[in-house]
Amino acid sequence: MRPVRLGMVGGGSGAFIGAVHRIAARMDGQFVLVAGALSSDADRAAASAAELGIRSYDSFHEMVRAEAAREDGIEAVSIVTPNHLHAAPAAAFLRAGIHVICDKPLAATPEQAQQIAEAARASGAHFFLTHNYCAMPMVREARALVAEGALGKIRLVQVEYLQGWLADQPDSKQAEWRADPARAGAGAIADIGTHAWQLAQFVTGQTPATLSADLSSMVAGRVVDDDARIALRYASGAKGGIWISQVAVGQENGLSLRIFGTEGALEWRLPDPERLILSPKDGPARILTRAQDRSASFRTPPGHPEGYLEGFSNIYLDIASIIRRDSRLLDRVPGLDAGLSGMAFIAAAQASSARDGAWVEVGS
Amino acid sequence: MRPVRLGMVGGGSGAFIGAVHRIAARMDGQFVLVAGALSSDADRAAASAAELGIRSYDSFHEMVRAEAAREDGIEAVSIVTPNHLHAAPAAAFLRAGIHVICDKPLAATPEQAQQIAEAARASGAHFFLTHNYCAMPMVREARALVAEGALGKIRLVQVEYLQGWLADQPDSKQAEWRADPARAGAGAIADIGTHAWQLAQFVTGQTPATLSADLSSMVAGRVVDDDARIALRYASGAKGGIWISQVAVGQENGLSLRIFGTEGALEWRLPDPERLILSPKDGPARILTRAQDRSASFRTPPGHPEGYLEGFSNIYLDIASIIRRDSRLLDRVPGLDAGLSGMAFIAAAQASSARDGAWVEVGS
Amino acid sequence: MRPVRLGMVGGGSGAFIGAVHRIAARMDGQFVLVAGALSSDADRAAASAAELGIRSYDSFHEMVRAEAAREDGIEAVSIVTPNHLHAAPAAAFLRAGIHVICDKPLAATPEQAQQIAEAARASGAHFFLTHNYCAMPMVREARALVAEGALGKIRLVQVEYLQGWLADQPDSKQAEWRADPARAGAGAIADIGTHAWQLAQFVTGQTPATLSADLSSMVAGRVVDDDARIALRYASGAKGGIWISQVAVGQENGLSLRIFGTEGALEWRLPDPERLILSPKDGPARILTRAQDRSASFRTPPGHPEGYLEGFSNIYLDIASIIRRDSRLLDRVPGLDAGLSGMAFIAAAQASSARDGAWVEVGS
Amino acid sequence: MRPVRLGMVGGGSGAFIGAVHRIAARMDGQFVLVAGALSSDADRAAASAAELGIRSYDSFHEMVRAEAAREDGIEAVSIVTPNHLHAAPAAAFLRAGIHVICDKPLAATPEQAQQIAEAARASGAHFFLTHNYCAMPMVREARALVAEGALGKIRLVQVEYLQGWLADQPDSKQAEWRADPARAGAGAIADIGTHAWQLAQFVTGQTPATLSADLSSMVAGRVVDDDARIALRYASGAKGGIWISQVAVGQENGLSLRIFGTEGALEWRLPDPERLILSPKDGPARILTRAQDRSASFRTPPGHPEGYLEGFSNIYLDIASIIRRDSRLLDRVPGLDAGLSGMAFIAAAQASSARDGAWVEVGS
Repeated sequence: MRPVRLGMVGGGSGAFIGAVHRIAARMDGQFVLVAGALSSDADRAAASAAELGIRSYDSFHEMVRAEAAREDGIEAVSIVTPNHLHAAPAAAFLRAGIHVICDKPLAATPEQAQQIAEAARASGAHFFLTHNYCAMPMVREARALVAEGALGKIRLVQVEYLQGWLADQPDSKQAEWRADPARAGAGAIADIGTHAWQLAQFVTGQTPATLSADLSSMVAGRVVDDDARIALRYASGAKGGIWISQVAVGQENGLSLRIFGTEGALEWRLPDPERLILSPKDGPARILTRAQDRSASFRTPPGHPEGYLEGFSNIYLDIASIIRRDSRLLDRVPGLDAGLSGMAFIAAAQASSARDGAWVEVGS
Repeated sequence: MRPVRLGMVGGGSGAFIGAVHRIAARMDGQFVLVAGALSSDADRAAASAAELGIRSYDSFHEMVRAEAAREDGIEAVSIVTPNHLHAAPAAAFLRAGIHVICDKPLAATPEQAQQIAEAARASGAHFFLTHNYCAMPMVREARALVAEGALGKIRLVQVEYLQGWLADQPDSKQAEWRADPARAGAGAIADIGTHAWQLAQFVTGQTPATLSADLSSMVAGRVVDDDARIALRYASGAKGGIWISQVAVGQENGLSLRIFGTEGALEWRLPDPERLILSPKDGPARILTRAQDRSASFRTPPGHPEGYLEGFSNIYLDIASIIRRDSRLLDRVPGLDAGLSGMAFIAAAQASSARDGAWVEVGS
Repeated sequence: MRPVRLGMVGGGSGAFIGAVHRIAARMDGQFVLVAGALSSDADRAAASAAELGIRSYDSFHEMVRAEAAREDGIEAVSIVTPNHLHAAPAAAFLRAGIHVICDKPLAATPEQAQQIAEAARASGAHFFLTHNYCAMPMVREARALVAEGALGKIRLVQVEYLQGWLADQPDSKQAEWRADPARAGAGAIADIGTHAWQLAQFVTGQTPATLSADLSSMVAGRVVDDDARIALRYASGAKGGIWISQVAVGQENGLSLRIFGTEGALEWRLPDPERLILSPKDGPARILTRAQDRSASFRTPPGHPEGYLEGFSNIYLDIASIIRRDSRLLDRVPGLDAGLSGMAFIAAAQASSARDGAWVEVGS
Repeated sequence: MRPVRLGMVGGGSGAFIGAVHRIAARMDGQFVLVAGALSSDADRAAASAAELGIRSYDSFHEMVRAEAAREDGIEAVSIVTPNHLHAAPAAAFLRAGIHVICDKPLAATPEQAQQIAEAARASGAHFFLTHNYCAMPMVREARALVAEGALGKIRLVQVEYLQGWLADQPDSKQAEWRADPARAGAGAIADIGTHAWQLAQFVTGQTPATLSADLSSMVAGRVVDDDARIALRYASGAKGGIWISQVAVGQENGLSLRIFGTEGALEWRLPDPERLILSPKDGPARILTRAQDRSASFRTPPGHPEGYLEGFSNIYLDIASIIRRDSRLLDRVPGLDAGLSGMAFIAAAQASSARDGAWVEVGS
């Protein structure tokens, strides 16, 4: 099948997430990267594009215009800029009828989020948000198990996302813009909190009604939050918690999800991503692996460890199918709704924390 | 060395924790059980005592009187009754100058706690509270590491204590009195929450200043709490969380402790009790075992798994030494202060939850 | 029930395994230690006995004579001397009609083993051998699963017992006699190899027909083996392997057992003793815990870690029942047959290794 | 940088390892697949090539001729046919000066291996063998640790490679040719045994001098080996063992490596590939992760799990660099020597097993 022609905004040499998107687009051969506005620095943009052997643009404005005009222009674009620079290019490409694959979170401000929402709703093109963890095989299997009632009625949901890389004031490029409220929108709750929020939502199929948050800035001089402890209440009566931290020394990328229901429990941990522990109320726990995954979201037999990049690629693979008109997969690829829900989560968490943990409704 | 003569109140045949105390008292040969008021049911008391080959009393009143009068009367007594029946015997034995080893929590009500406190302060005898987990070797080593600064300044403390045995309405004797507010004082927060509270306190050497709690009763018809999510704030600026549950299906006895500081982190989990993970801020995590434990709180070489009963026995072993006038060990055996702190924790958690999670000071 | 009166030969202060036997005898209150010939050094024997508050003898000869003559003399004796000193006391006590609980391996030489065998067969008293690991709950459950066919026909059996404490020439008392062929009989294959051999035999219910061994002495100047790699062939067509080492740096006490059959597999590891992984041929692996153990070989609910000492105590508990005439338990407590099989294993392994790994029949 | 033009022999639709090679070639964008003789079935070859959008050939003969003649012909070819079909195409491409990337094992017979060896030695092109596991980051770090002496003098080496997928007679295509001695050369020892052999060799830098093997065919009607237990002796005095099985029910792809030296030990397990346990002789074990890997063989920060496909891609990445004249990397990419050593291993194991486990020299 002919690969989908892809462009990229952001992701010049040295950028972490841009390289990840390129690998994800490449892994299954369903995309070919042909154009990019890879950096706000024109020289760096050109050099990065030359290295990749793609058409280079000085700005996304120019890129939209030129690519939309080409017979062989891009069909989709990946936006991998800092959070405050998602909205403008996303809206522009959507308006040009080009599918948008946007890194999370949706935006740095509600206004920017609104801008994307309007453009997406008005566009015939798709908008995708790369909450990659929900595309890992055992997470998809977890969702299937919940949906079919393996846990009974859900009572407790606990998500943790713990990292330690911001325990001090680092001076890396990646750390820098994340520490600036104007560019990042928020700190850890935006960067990793939205992943945690989406993961719980994806697997349980439920969204908390209210939350109570305690955001902290543990490092002297830091303006944004770097640790948050958030209690959740669901309309169903279930309770939950999200604990995120970027000052949790020794934790590399400790995302985990635990769900307890009336009939059973599930546990999944990113550092051991190919095992899903299912504990029925009675009887021994079971170690599910890809041999039990019914979504077939993998490339190799069980026991050949797949991980982060393969999960990310699963999203790109689904996107390629959707672009080719397989709309059934829309159900499992995060898009505008997930993005808006993440923004509502950030807003509610900040509002609650500002009111010393008062319970706040999560808007939609 | 002559073993210490021990009595017991409660713990008739079929009781879980009474049998545990007897094993703990026996394991190192430092105690000899000689007398008991083992049940409020006189026949059962007599039969249980006969089986153990000890002097039997119909009530603790009678037992205090008789034992205090004997030349070879008991020197210490273990109180293993339901929570609301700790205070009266504890006070009576303390007044008679007999050391008291009391199961946790201290009492079912503040008034009962106060009764014990007054008796303990007025007595020349010791009062001990069996928060057994803090006597496990790797927990003692964790405390030593924190004390010597291996973690730097503590930022985050997280304790979980998850069980699933009350996910339904069980009809066991042990479940029954725990479900009655009058006898238990509270639900999960009293039964396992106080363990979690004391564990964090023991290892960190700090007590949270305020807390915000969300207590739940997840099972229809249950009056007491069976799940609680509690946020903690320390005077030092550290934050913490306690999550306890007795409806966490699939969890047998999931106690765990994680502490993150500016220089390193510690993780300990009861299901794997002989390993303590120390993660320095830089460099690889280290798996500490009893080979690194400096408290020497064990009986066998590293690699010969010791667990719950040995930890419990460590408390009895220390108590025997203290009774024989080694007061240095008082520092690591929980007593009245730990008990009162646990009561203050329960009260604060209930008060906060009643006010929808408002931050409440933890009294002392 | 009246506790069984117990004596001890060996196990003076400082001895490791003597103390373990005393704890095991004490833990469930079924034995009372009343007499001992605790050391070949008369002063040390007396001092140790005084500390324990028991009758002291200068030699086991004297002890047999005196105890057999007393109305309240010992009913059973624990022999915890170095390997070459098992036979003489064991035979003497058996001849006096006193039950013998002997530490493993049976003896240091075939002649000594024969001496015990003759005495045991001629005696009305029981002979027990403390292969303690087979009394741990999940090992007993493993045996039950194999017996009921959960694995189908067994194809592969693999036991490892890895320690690192003899990686150098240590100068501890425990290391010293183990390094002397005359006192230990053999090196690692006697000390831990017989445990491995018995464990496989106990769980599978099968004894290998032939073996091929490669014994090594990895440390300069050491005479006995400290590492052995042994291949096994069963009459059934199953194959197996035993790998033991005492120079495996970093391994504290790494005993593990894996069995693969036509229908399923089992894995048990001493460092995580309360979990048994059962992998059916089809479907996910199951994590069995004491909640699934049908032997009820424990004192606390699942999740309250029990380990080495509790397993050891399970043997003593069964012995007490057997002495009180519950012969049903004889099936699961190792005795003379296990001891002789262990001696045959040692002999075959040494013979095979001497012939460069030739396949050798295991005598019986 | 311009991607290397790649061809493929074998790997038509449905083939497992062909798809893996294609992902590995694609992941880092260093190769572009342009031509293939993807199947011996001409229709299937054409259809598979069409799907991939590449030039199709009916046979490798035709492909060599045509590609060698093109200005823009392939620079390298991946050979992913069954074992007995490696030699002819490998020799042909090498003679044409085209680099060969060959799946393992080298060949099905010594004669075929010889054919490759001669062609490789006579060619200016490179020959690579995809023993992919040695390219995983923590394996490379393990090798570096051994090389710098972190373990001291090596005493013990243990490799296991356990799978369960051939516990019955499966009827998949992949299982079918592997069960035919003419096509596979041998059973499990060829398919996974050579991986185990190479892994030990790669990390330790040593090759065993002699071995003693016991090969089995556990499944009725199977001609080739499906289980093997192999003892190793090194010239240095070190001992080792390889246990491989394809009837180990419940094992998905259980490759593991343990090395014990005089100063420390290493353990690595494929199911948990991003952790390497380093146990110094004294002091606690350390959990090394990619944060400690000095080979930088990864694409994402530590904690973002990479696995099998990324390891495979590391080989392709190195090959691209070597083709572009960075010969420094030749040291860590397996080639002809590894292939011939694997053949010698197979031959020695079969010879020893035929002589009931006699010690046999491993030729070179």
